[in-house]
Amino acid sequence: MPTILTLYEIPEEYAKQIREIAPDYELKSVPVKEVTPEQIREADILVGWNRKMEQAALESDNLKWIQSWSAGVDYFPMDQLEEKKVLLTNAGGVHAIPISEHIFAVLLAMSRNLHGNIRSQVHGKWDKGGLYGEISGLTMAIVGTGHIGRATARIAKAFGMHTIGVRHSGDPEEHIDDMYKTDGIEQAFSKADVVVNILPLTDETHHFFNKDSFGYMKKGTVFINVGRGPSVDTDALIEALDSGKLSSAALDVFEKEPLPEDHPLWKREDVIITPHAAGNTDHYDVRAAEIFVDNLKAFVKGETLPRNLVDYSRKY
Amino acid sequence: MPTILTLYEIPEEYAKQIREIAPDYELKSVPVKEVTPEQIREADILVGWNRKMEQAALESDNLKWIQSWSAGVDYFPMDQLEEKKVLLTNAGGVHAIPISEHIFAVLLAMSRNLHGNIRSQVHGKWDKGGLYGEISGLTMAIVGTGHIGRATARIAKAFGMHTIGVRHSGDPEEHIDDMYKTDGIEQAFSKADVVVNILPLTDETHHFFNKDSFGYMKKGTVFINVGRGPSVDTDALIEALDSGKLSSAALDVFEKEPLPEDHPLWKREDVIITPHAAGNTDHYDVRAAEIFVDNLKAFVKGETLPRNLVDYSRKY
Repeated sequence: MPTILTLYEIPEEYAKQIREIAPDYELKSVPVKEVTPEQIREADILVGWNRKMEQAALESDNLKWIQSWSAGVDYFPMDQLEEKKVLLTNAGGVHAIPISEHIFAVLLAMSRNLHGNIRSQVHGKWDKGGLYGEISGLTMAIVGTGHIGRATARIAKAFGMHTIGVRHSGDPEEHIDDMYKTDGIEQAFSKADVVVNILPLTDETHHFFNKDSFGYMKKGTVFINVGRGPSVDTDALIEALDSGKLSSAALDVFEKEPLPEDHPLWKREDVIITPHAAGNTDHYDVRAAEIFVDNLKAFVKGETLPRNLVDYSRKY
Repeated sequence: MPTILTLYEIPEEYAKQIREIAPDYELKSVPVKEVTPEQIREADILVGWNRKMEQAALESDNLKWIQSWSAGVDYFPMDQLEEKKVLLTNAGGVHAIPISEHIFAVLLAMSRNLHGNIRSQVHGKWDKGGLYGEISGLTMAIVGTGHIGRATARIAKAFGMHTIGVRHSGDPEEHIDDMYKTDGIEQAFSKADVVVNILPLTDETHHFFNKDSFGYMKKGTVFINVGRGPSVDTDALIEALDSGKLSSAALDVFEKEPLPEDHPLWKREDVIITPHAAGNTDHYDVRAAEIFVDNLKAFVKGETLPRNLVDYSRKY
């Protein structure tokens, strides 16, 4: 009997659907900490992934499809999976709500001096000082306009912001006032008050935010990184903060995670640090299970997987 | 020559307009700390207010109109002003943008564990724990649906929230899905996940949020107060936090301000305290000046003041 091996607890409502959609498959749930190489090698469909299981997966003669539980898939051995003709689908879209909400949480915290006020509260201090701006009327540049970027743009418009998008194709998008291609960042960044990085990590996006890209920005730009740590050159970022090019930054991802204890970013009051948590949400498992179920329906009929099939040539 | 006495620095662009609109008036700018009772008694129009000048203003035979620089006017001697037929206009609307942005700053900080993460950052700690919710799909009850409430509802809808309004008249309003009259709070609060107080302070609204009103709410409600401190019974609020009726609260105003150093609210990690700063904005003076200029145009023609004329019978 072919096997669906899941490393996550599938909510019961969805487990029931899976059994109905694929009655010829055994649905086996094993926590990632307990899973054995043999179980991996036996699975036809894998739900979830961990670097430790890479060897067993690549040795398998059964594996046909991996449903990732994460949206970013840069840590998968894509060349080998492509060669073995294993399909890979990601959990893109699951993060659209939590990450777009995170973006406004940190942006508003910075513009409304909440960062300062929470620090004052820790010290029991009523401090009327500090600067209070408004995001209404500002221009936000969104770099990477997938699920998350689109949700972010919609909310930005409700706040009365002007929105700029940066995407590979340069194709227009609802709620984005002006769209630029990736090679148009000099112009895009020169107009933005807030720059949000939502890029996936690929060879092309490594250190996309470097000395040059920060150089294109206006003095006093707010920078938010909810993409991937290595798409930002941390030294260039710190230099941009020191020079005033950036007035502040909210960073959820880092070149090295966890951010080392002695890293200078920790102590900066112009930086908000969150522990790679922008995508966390209590709705995660339900949404990811929905994607898997939709794909499974197509898989059992031999059709193309409709949701979030990774294009190995683009690496995401 | 009749006098317009302003206690605030009117932006030059507006000062110029004032001189053009009212060429027969002298525009005199004196900082509140330097103003004398004599200057107050001589003024025909007063821009700004301070309790210290109450006696001089009430003795004046010249005073015809006060343009308040604040939206809340509960600290004005309204009965005497009414008796003396002095008009009072407030700065309502100036706060719509900053306060609606503040509301989402604190709401998202609580739901996205930013409150916890900023505390962790102060201690240089990468802490993956904490709960991460979403405001999308939640129901927000907005108590007081003036300028600020309307702006708040518009943004709430973009975040995918359901919106409930509570207002004296019960009249419907754009972006508010269900409107209740003030006597309908039992039903309104029982449906809300987030309750926002934007009420002005009047005799009727003193301790509007008391043991009963918190009692109507669901367990785990988030409470945000950007109205006035005395509209909330602080003891009842603390009891509601202790019992879990409220999961958290963000308080910008207090029965006694500044909040006393030894007040138990300071130490609570389920409370965000801001120092009566929700309305702060670097756009304040320009917007207030706009209101004054619009009113002045009508005043010189002997017409009814069009913007924010206080109704002494309602006290706001």
